[in-house]
Amino acid sequence: FGGLWGVLRTVVVRAYEMGRSDPRKVVFSAKLGLALALISLLIFWKEPFPDISEHYVWAILTVVVVFEFSIGATFSKGFNRALGTLSAGGLALAMAEFAHLCERAGEPWDEVVIVVSIFTIGSLATYAKLYPTWKAYEYGFRVFTLTYCYIMASGYRTNEFIDTAVSRFLLIALGAGVSLLVNVGIYPIWAGEDLHNLVVKNFYGVANSLEGCINQYLDCVEYKRIPSKILTYQAHEDRLYSGYRSAVESTSQEDTLLGFAIWEPPHGAYKKHHPWRSFVKVSGALRHCAFMVMALHGCILSEIQAPADRRRVFRDELQRVSTAGAKVLRELGNKVKKMEKLGTSNILDEVLKAAEDLQKKVDQKSYLLVDSNSWEIGKPPIELHDPQDFSKIEDPYAYHGYHSFSETLLDLGKSRSNESGSTTNLPFEGTNGLLHRSLTRQFSLKPERMVILDEADTYKSASVLSLVTFTSLLIEFVARLGNLVAAFEELSEKAKFKAPPVEGRRE
Amino acid sequence: FGGLWGVLRTVVVRAYEMGRSDPRKVVFSAKLGLALALISLLIFWKEPFPDISEHYVWAILTVVVVFEFSIGATFSKGFNRALGTLSAGGLALAMAEFAHLCERAGEPWDEVVIVVSIFTIGSLATYAKLYPTWKAYEYGFRVFTLTYCYIMASGYRTNEFIDTAVSRFLLIALGAGVSLLVNVGIYPIWAGEDLHNLVVKNFYGVANSLEGCINQYLDCVEYKRIPSKILTYQAHEDRLYSGYRSAVESTSQEDTLLGFAIWEPPHGAYKKHHPWRSFVKVSGALRHCAFMVMALHGCILSEIQAPADRRRVFRDELQRVSTAGAKVLRELGNKVKKMEKLGTSNILDEVLKAAEDLQKKVDQKSYLLVDSNSWEIGKPPIELHDPQDFSKIEDPYAYHGYHSFSETLLDLGKSRSNESGSTTNLPFEGTNGLLHRSLTRQFSLKPERMVILDEADTYKSASVLSLVTFTSLLIEFVARLGNLVAAFEELSEKAKFKAPPVEGRRE
Repeated sequence: FGGLWGVLRTVVVRAYEMGRSDPRKVVFSAKLGLALALISLLIFWKEPFPDISEHYVWAILTVVVVFEFSIGATFSKGFNRALGTLSAGGLALAMAEFAHLCERAGEPWDEVVIVVSIFTIGSLATYAKLYPTWKAYEYGFRVFTLTYCYIMASGYRTNEFIDTAVSRFLLIALGAGVSLLVNVGIYPIWAGEDLHNLVVKNFYGVANSLEGCINQYLDCVEYKRIPSKILTYQAHEDRLYSGYRSAVESTSQEDTLLGFAIWEPPHGAYKKHHPWRSFVKVSGALRHCAFMVMALHGCILSEIQAPADRRRVFRDELQRVSTAGAKVLRELGNKVKKMEKLGTSNILDEVLKAAEDLQKKVDQKSYLLVDSNSWEIGKPPIELHDPQDFSKIEDPYAYHGYHSFSETLLDLGKSRSNESGSTTNLPFEGTNGLLHRSLTRQFSLKPERMVILDEADTYKSASVLSLVTFTSLLIEFVARLGNLVAAFEELSEKAKFKAPPVEGRRE
Repeated sequence: FGGLWGVLRTVVVRAYEMGRSDPRKVVFSAKLGLALALISLLIFWKEPFPDISEHYVWAILTVVVVFEFSIGATFSKGFNRALGTLSAGGLALAMAEFAHLCERAGEPWDEVVIVVSIFTIGSLATYAKLYPTWKAYEYGFRVFTLTYCYIMASGYRTNEFIDTAVSRFLLIALGAGVSLLVNVGIYPIWAGEDLHNLVVKNFYGVANSLEGCINQYLDCVEYKRIPSKILTYQAHEDRLYSGYRSAVESTSQEDTLLGFAIWEPPHGAYKKHHPWRSFVKVSGALRHCAFMVMALHGCILSEIQAPADRRRVFRDELQRVSTAGAKVLRELGNKVKKMEKLGTSNILDEVLKAAEDLQKKVDQKSYLLVDSNSWEIGKPPIELHDPQDFSKIEDPYAYHGYHSFSETLLDLGKSRSNESGSTTNLPFEGTNGLLHRSLTRQFSLKPERMVILDEADTYKSASVLSLVTFTSLLIEFVARLGNLVAAFEELSEKAKFKAPPVEGRRE
């Protein structure tokens, strides 16, 4: 009994939490209950409709089926139901006339006509609903099949084709009417609003992921073991990962919401002919940026890691691009949220300048990004591997509390151990379950391939070049922001967003 | 009338094409028609069931609703329907007893009890179905609500609660029985098979994209205008793009098929407890690789492009990695298709060797990947910008039919013009509609920021470094292959794949 009590408690707690996180669910459930209760009142009026119980089920069925969470879904289903019922009703009445004609021709013919027509119509409607572009009307075809079969069958039994069709239609209309009134009249839930919020949420998610990525990269935080869920692209609570993943994964959700939103009448801030498709387009452009954040994250996941001190050389610049980029994303997110146009100053100014400076720095210091040891043409004039000379390079971070260049390089060849304070190095062992076997690991398993020194060199060089990859990807991310801003501007024109409150220089 | 004829012709042609591309759709439609016709035969036996027309609708409704494309979906819906009907029936009968008790207490109380219970049960069932982890049982809750309301309402009218519940249940069982028999008995369509094929198709798609990417990169084929559909991540017929996109986008489809596949009984090659989840996991690991192909494609989409002659330096190595990588993907795809284990030799040998050689080559020639002009520490010992010295570098491509190094560099600073034969350069103008504004373009719009020479230099350096990015991403792709192979091995163990036919060295 105690166990039952515990289960009950859990259920109540879970239900309460669900209600608190999204009170609309509570409202929706109560609304559905209300609609059903209203319809059920019908059965108490026995007087005008003595025969109603036979068709009464249609009213309930309609409420249960048509009453959907969002107004758009309700309209879309209601439309499908109406269309399916009406067209099937018309066709069934025509066929019934034909069956009557056949009846005069002889006993079994009307039955043959009915069965053959049910087979034919059922097959054709089902075949039609499988056509990809008609997927949105799938429910309509289902209703069509159901209605047709029902009217044919029950009409045959009672020989009252028209009565069946009409009373059924009236009850469906009643059910649909009550559903629409209750659903739209009391605290309507709009799919369009959900779509709007989803797009805004994606902006923030990608911004967080971007900042998280750069910070983690600069702090040399690495995954001790890469969660196998990330390696198989499943949902995972890692904040950095879930930010861009949900933006990437929201396509199907957006498509569903879009399919409902276009059914919704103008409401609130959403005027007539609100360009919902452009919202989805902006989200697509954001996704295009999110893929670059994903690639940046890939640099963190990779076992080939740039040494910490070289990352520090570019710390300021990387940080600036990250902050400015995330700022742009958040600002665009806010603009989408408030449905506001961009100001007169270029929103990209700051991030472009930062990216430019990063590129210049890379340009000036690209000797740090390659490993001159194996150059066929000889080494550059300054011997980088001499710690004395290293101080000549103007780099505020290079000598404060970190390994000297040469030491780090030597360490790298062996294994990126935990000696240098702030770095949490990847163990060479694999990740949980799946054994993330890196190239490095594969190489080291095959010592016959090359001498050990050679292998270490190859790894060293790769690890240094990975910093180039990181910066290039970041710069490409910034380039893609331009595309995102263009998509946003198209949206803000089409949706007639309002002008920003304070015109003038925002900087 | 001619117009109508044209429409009809189009419809017939489309229908024929759909049937030819997937004959299962034709079979399924015919099967559904057959099931409906079988059920409709029931109405002709008037004798034993004089009162059947009232509840007859339930049999038809059950067929229309439960008869789904795949066996798994049919089972899952049938189970939901049965569970919902039975539990709601039981509850309704109990409530009916309670209402009877109230009836004795006075007139209006039974009606109040009925309405209140409909409201309560309807609300609670709806609230429960909104709970995320119960999403798979959404249909069951719907049926529960419907059944409860119907039995309460129609029982009140006729006072035959039990009769209503029983006859309704029998007809539903009949409809479900006919559906299952027809659907499983005649040419069953398995969701598991679909899932299997989808995963295999994804392997080929990613392999094609990978090869396409490298070839396009090496041939310096660029998009004249990047299709705006790619920039907003919408479906697009570009072969290279659609290959990895469909692998990335198939998550929701896989989840749906998985949800059905686990309902299916053992059939054909799929034994009892077939590990469908591991199939999806392998597909996830493949997706993790596909993201790297996507990033490689990003290098082609980028406006920052490495000069053609430098790409040629690494042509052989890049090509080898690409061929070997695609071979691994196709081989794994074939293994998944044939449900065969890996052989004794390491499938990754070839691609790892190729990646290693690429890395070594990058290592030896990394001076080609950076631009020493702006180094603060001075230029490397050999003056790269003197065409005479350039020939000292052992590079078979450098001087055959291509621009000399210095010329290309000069060209780059201005604009990547069409002078060098084989390259189709990106126009600096944007793409259709969305104006893909690149960094470069943004820079050049702001001449006040820096002197022109500086800007050109920055661009030049970025363009050279982009080759590093490309190779790093490719090597990371190879590293991720290891993870994919591990996921495949896990699957092949769990699913007890058969041993490969010819054991021995495959090379």
